[in-house]
Amino acid sequence: MSTTFKKLAVLGSTGSIGQQTLDIIKDFPGKFRILGLSGGKNTSLLAEQISQFQPKLAYSSTKLSLPDKTKFSSMEEIASHPDVDIVIIATSGKTGLAPTLAAIRSGKKIALANKEVLVMAGEIIMAEAKYHQAQIMPIDSEHSAIWQCLRGEKAEVARLILTASGGPFYHYSPTQLAKVTVEEALQHPTWEMGRKVTIDSATLMNKGLELIEAHWLFSVPFKKIEVIIHPQSIIHSMVEFADGSLKAQLSTPDMRFPIQYALSYPERLTNPSLPHFDLARLNSLTFETIDYSMFPCLQLALDAGKKGGTYPSVLCAADEIAVELFLKQRINFPGIAEIIAHTISLHRGIAKPTLDEILAADDWARDTAIKITEKANLCSKQ
Amino acid sequence: MSTTFKKLAVLGSTGSIGQQTLDIIKDFPGKFRILGLSGGKNTSLLAEQISQFQPKLAYSSTKLSLPDKTKFSSMEEIASHPDVDIVIIATSGKTGLAPTLAAIRSGKKIALANKEVLVMAGEIIMAEAKYHQAQIMPIDSEHSAIWQCLRGEKAEVARLILTASGGPFYHYSPTQLAKVTVEEALQHPTWEMGRKVTIDSATLMNKGLELIEAHWLFSVPFKKIEVIIHPQSIIHSMVEFADGSLKAQLSTPDMRFPIQYALSYPERLTNPSLPHFDLARLNSLTFETIDYSMFPCLQLALDAGKKGGTYPSVLCAADEIAVELFLKQRINFPGIAEIIAHTISLHRGIAKPTLDEILAADDWARDTAIKITEKANLCSKQ
Repeated sequence: MSTTFKKLAVLGSTGSIGQQTLDIIKDFPGKFRILGLSGGKNTSLLAEQISQFQPKLAYSSTKLSLPDKTKFSSMEEIASHPDVDIVIIATSGKTGLAPTLAAIRSGKKIALANKEVLVMAGEIIMAEAKYHQAQIMPIDSEHSAIWQCLRGEKAEVARLILTASGGPFYHYSPTQLAKVTVEEALQHPTWEMGRKVTIDSATLMNKGLELIEAHWLFSVPFKKIEVIIHPQSIIHSMVEFADGSLKAQLSTPDMRFPIQYALSYPERLTNPSLPHFDLARLNSLTFETIDYSMFPCLQLALDAGKKGGTYPSVLCAADEIAVELFLKQRINFPGIAEIIAHTISLHRGIAKPTLDEILAADDWARDTAIKITEKANLCSKQ
Repeated sequence: MSTTFKKLAVLGSTGSIGQQTLDIIKDFPGKFRILGLSGGKNTSLLAEQISQFQPKLAYSSTKLSLPDKTKFSSMEEIASHPDVDIVIIATSGKTGLAPTLAAIRSGKKIALANKEVLVMAGEIIMAEAKYHQAQIMPIDSEHSAIWQCLRGEKAEVARLILTASGGPFYHYSPTQLAKVTVEEALQHPTWEMGRKVTIDSATLMNKGLELIEAHWLFSVPFKKIEVIIHPQSIIHSMVEFADGSLKAQLSTPDMRFPIQYALSYPERLTNPSLPHFDLARLNSLTFETIDYSMFPCLQLALDAGKKGGTYPSVLCAADEIAVELFLKQRINFPGIAEIIAHTISLHRGIAKPTLDEILAADDWARDTAIKITEKANLCSKQ
């Protein structure tokens, strides 16, 4: 009897997306099998997951003793293992880059949640994916929505319309923004996510990164990608086609929907664990065109995306440092955009960079962002 | 040089949908050619259209002298002519039945705007279309929306959600409804349409007929079709899939969008004549679940659809008579539903009827609806 299981590797299984991916896998024991897991700092959770799913391969960035059946392997080894069908890249930051490339070069299907992979190295990733005929399936709700809307369509895209909740501080004045606390910034109105993504949602950097991702994923020029505020997060994004008709994808805001869609694609599976969509939820869907000047991080991302080369890499790295500094209460909320802008202004970009040049730009940006902050703190202390 | 024109026959070319179909055809002189036209009472307009498009074949239900190049032919002859690729059924009432069947039996592509065809004879039409591999492409905005949302999808449909503007009298009290004038009923808030369809929109009979059409067109049981009030008419309908994800299709409310989609399918053509979708139009999209008791015509249609057989035919015929009587100010607005309900209550349905039985039920219902009204008027005069 031949099995029809899809064999999966989940990289970043202890993070928010990783855990929700495992939830979906648990919902369909007859459909999916875990072949590989990898986790970061949360070793106790990783150990638990390994004991539950008994993967052949596992990786942990911190020391962890593995059961006999499970072989310690690098993320690249897991991502390129011949038995793996789908690699779920649920890592964060630049961690996902090397395993994504390993998966692509082995012709795997890749379910991609790690924004930085495409933001930092979109050109390389998409070219390699095309060459190796590796399918990249987005897990982000916005890109999943666009992917679903494009399903079966061959016509040219007139516009991609990314929806943004606007975050918790939408309509805040600059004075109010300067006083935003870490606790307030971590309260997202509609989505449950990790800390970094939640802060990125509040600054709309998250939407900016998605804009760059959408550009690469769907080969749509930046001038044809718009962002629109939609506080209810019911419509996850829209596509306008050449004939002026638009399609939108909707669901209850729950990341398990786009995760399941990617894992089960091209099938759509009925999952009683997922919330039923109550039509009364539609009630009133509101939309507002966006004022980019209110969201400097979004503007910075758009500019970096358009400049291309190493700029998006600098954007990501500086943002990571800036968000960390905000979470440590070292800078205030508007300081996030200021540090990123300052870092980018000092960068000498490289066009058509190699992966090494991209990683070097990332290192440079981290150092630079820290130095900028230290210097500013030094100055403010004088 | 072989031409790649799509050769079209437009039946009912002088009606609202017919005229808009010709508008689209004029927008793409390199794409479409008119082979046949047919019109009803508006002979001067039909003569003008014939002179402009120089069709090979034409039919007029009233006397009309044709140019030498144009041969007078029956609608069935036009619909089944070997050179015709797509037959646009833009007739109204039962007129479209015979030519639709003729087109199906010749394996044509059919762009269907004539609601009654599927409502009266959905079972026969869909079975014949399957047998002759004739594709039926809806022109109604709601069904076009569903068709677009289903594009490329293979998964089971969990729900079809038809949107309804609610008509101009949404939230009127019974007392207010009794006083509605013909002029008021002819003012539709969002769509420009013919008189009969506009009244049917006000009573929501139109939505009821669409519900029955959707049932046949997409083979979805009635319990999986919902109607939701959406006064802005921006989202034209939605599909919920087995996985709980929904897709919606949107555009400026303009019938030329679904008409063009059907004519150009599977292509999507850029048409500068069509209004550009301004994202600011989204502003606020509101939705309300429907109270069927407020819309007796919708309930009557749903019941007739579920009963099947000759009941939907009786529903259509009685509605046509009732709307005519309302337009002639012989009955008041709530009287439309009353006459239909009374007519249906007197009908002895036939299950799995032949086409002749369907047409006989239609005749019977017209006579009965008139008799009911006459009797009621007689009684009220005594």
